[in-house]
Amino acid sequence: MSFLERLFSPDSIALIGASKDETKLGGIILRNLLQFKGRVYPVNPKYREIMGLKAYPSSADVPGKCDLVIIMRPAPEVPAILHGLQGRTRCAVIMSSGFAETGQIGLQEEVKKISAGSGIRILGPNCMGIYNPSQRLDTFFLPRERLKRPGRGNVGIVSQSGAILSCLLGAAASSRTGVSKVVGYGNAMDIDESELYEYLAEDEDTEVVVSYIESVADGRRFLEKARILSEKKALLILKAGKGESGQAAAFSHTGRLAGRYEVFHSLLRRFNISEAMDFDGLMDATKALSYQRPGRGNRVCIITNGGGSGVLAADECMSQGLEVTSLPGPSKEKLGRVFPLYYGINNPVDLTAQVKDDDYATALEELKGDYDGFLIIVLPNVMGITEGLAEKLMASRKYLSKPLVCHIAEGGITARLTRLVERTRIPVYSSPERAVRALKALLG
Amino acid sequence: MSFLERLFSPDSIALIGASKDETKLGGIILRNLLQFKGRVYPVNPKYREIMGLKAYPSSADVPGKCDLVIIMRPAPEVPAILHGLQGRTRCAVIMSSGFAETGQIGLQEEVKKISAGSGIRILGPNCMGIYNPSQRLDTFFLPRERLKRPGRGNVGIVSQSGAILSCLLGAAASSRTGVSKVVGYGNAMDIDESELYEYLAEDEDTEVVVSYIESVADGRRFLEKARILSEKKALLILKAGKGESGQAAAFSHTGRLAGRYEVFHSLLRRFNISEAMDFDGLMDATKALSYQRPGRGNRVCIITNGGGSGVLAADECMSQGLEVTSLPGPSKEKLGRVFPLYYGINNPVDLTAQVKDDDYATALEELKGDYDGFLIIVLPNVMGITEGLAEKLMASRKYLSKPLVCHIAEGGITARLTRLVERTRIPVYSSPERAVRALKALLG
Repeated sequence: MSFLERLFSPDSIALIGASKDETKLGGIILRNLLQFKGRVYPVNPKYREIMGLKAYPSSADVPGKCDLVIIMRPAPEVPAILHGLQGRTRCAVIMSSGFAETGQIGLQEEVKKISAGSGIRILGPNCMGIYNPSQRLDTFFLPRERLKRPGRGNVGIVSQSGAILSCLLGAAASSRTGVSKVVGYGNAMDIDESELYEYLAEDEDTEVVVSYIESVADGRRFLEKARILSEKKALLILKAGKGESGQAAAFSHTGRLAGRYEVFHSLLRRFNISEAMDFDGLMDATKALSYQRPGRGNRVCIITNGGGSGVLAADECMSQGLEVTSLPGPSKEKLGRVFPLYYGINNPVDLTAQVKDDDYATALEELKGDYDGFLIIVLPNVMGITEGLAEKLMASRKYLSKPLVCHIAEGGITARLTRLVERTRIPVYSSPERAVRALKALLG
Repeated sequence: MSFLERLFSPDSIALIGASKDETKLGGIILRNLLQFKGRVYPVNPKYREIMGLKAYPSSADVPGKCDLVIIMRPAPEVPAILHGLQGRTRCAVIMSSGFAETGQIGLQEEVKKISAGSGIRILGPNCMGIYNPSQRLDTFFLPRERLKRPGRGNVGIVSQSGAILSCLLGAAASSRTGVSKVVGYGNAMDIDESELYEYLAEDEDTEVVVSYIESVADGRRFLEKARILSEKKALLILKAGKGESGQAAAFSHTGRLAGRYEVFHSLLRRFNISEAMDFDGLMDATKALSYQRPGRGNRVCIITNGGGSGVLAADECMSQGLEVTSLPGPSKEKLGRVFPLYYGINNPVDLTAQVKDDDYATALEELKGDYDGFLIIVLPNVMGITEGLAEKLMASRKYLSKPLVCHIAEGGITARLTRLVERTRIPVYSSPERAVRALKALLG
């Protein structure tokens, strides 16, 4: 079992800095660790028992070796703690902040030396740690009632920032996107994005990797690992610290220089690695790639019951390099026979306010062979749209294996309809443009 | 009283094509008209009474003149209906589709001639009509349980597309943005965006105007009216039909040519008229401008409890031409004394996961004089953030009259906290980038 395999699926965990107080970070982490499948050893000299678990005065008192040690103590104590762990673990997660990111570069260097000397690999410092739902492993210092965790799924998340990690988790949970392995690696003193990419490239549970990056220490290695990963899985990168202000902010955040964004951007392009342009773009593409297999081609068919929404979608297709080509003659003729006169039998197909649920399926089935990807636009404010639409769309998944995304506008039944449609693994978006950009992610 | 004044605030309305059936368009409209402050005359020869109102066999039977006649009958019947209205009304809303947008250009021309000959001004055809909450006037054929209407406020909406109009209303309602006068003008055969701009420029209830446009018939007149309006109020335009596909879609939607977008775009720029780039951008800016007064300058202060979110916001500031300038020395020193060592006393101010509600107010009060606009970023997943934050931010509105927007990330208390913060007229956005773009709208 590889070292990172062990990090994501340990048998036993010690938490140094465990607390009884559930409002303190060491208490929140311990409470989250109570769910963990394996053994948990809280370490705190003040108590003999915490949250029903036997507590240990120091790491030296923990029986046997630990696969993983989590350190949640003030930064200046960390070197001594690491010394004490020598020979007792292969891996420590240093969650504490107060290292290079606050100017304490010497302290971080000291920790790095101890790590190299002792062979203890380090995640962090200044990081969020690990979430692996298949092991019920959750090292985050965020209470679950404050941040809902996404369920099991095929998305791996690799984030330098803990804040963005929490935002990604929140967005994944609310968009019904399940995760495989999640890691916040903070200052990346030892384990970095490149090593994590290498691991996730081989991880069976992971089909999509989302990566938030502020800075990269070894650009050549990063590109190599990113390229290999993106050949095997869908890889989506959000690079922050693009301009002067962002770079300054990134430096004081993780203590590493961000480098020139233009270079980073053009290298990603050259190697055909997908880059998201903002947070919403990242999560929208992630949901699409998590729900569906990518396809090929750039011809898009738009089926809508709102004319203006179809126009906005067609505009966005153009700016994304997708083509909204005319309906082929025979299909146009056939749809003209089955649909009322006042429907717009073009691309976008305009089913108007007189739409019925069935019409979407009729159009999809007729046009399934003519396009590379499909966008369904639903304005659920008219009587003809019901929750039954989800079933009609689900049925279409049987004869249509091409990318299909959906925009459902705000309305009385939107939340319920969205839930039902997403159950069929058709991703739903709140604006026509976001839906088109997600479709673009599926069409490569 | 001007003719458009009468259109938005009529005393009496006749509905030709009123229906008993609440699933039919003529039934839905009538049900919505039941709320109206003035008199309503349903016209339908089949009934003597509909929904508790006396029904009339034809418009000729309606007692006295009508300020407004709504026509919801098949397109081919419209010319005869209009002839019958001669001398009985000054204004008709033709909601029916089946005119120029479906190729029936001759029919539309015929209607135009009758209108010119009879002096009856026409809104539409192929349009949604009017919503004026102060008169409880609502001519839309969308049931209220399907589409919640926004309450009274300062935003006027002028939309060529009924679909987009319904999306704008839905988004306004869900973002607590109130409206003054709302109009969907469809094919713009007679009353067009320019005339509506002229009216809204003088309308006391309207401070912000949102306009969705696919095509403009008289470009010179449009620019003149848009310029005058934008000098008096905040005007936001979303232009659809930008490229070939979008233009084709727009033509089959409202039967007018969209024209070259590049020309449109550069003219708006020249006259300093704001253009939204997509639907979300339009609604985000609208909320900001509806909630707060615009300011001047481009120096932005970001106060966050999540480092990565601050970096993304700083990046977006750069790409929007906003400057995230360093904290002035004295402020930095003072905040350094009151905040813990591990807070990042830079711009962005990083209050870290150890944040307390109070910290935002402390930073805001100290920095209020140093910047032109403020962005508050809240990751509500840590224990130190409570619903009490809304009160702290509200207090800040007393000493801070500059633009202030907020990004609150996904989390357990997000919905409640957002509602409380927006009650204080601080607009809240779901991503750092969207919040920055909204702040940009406030800083002109």
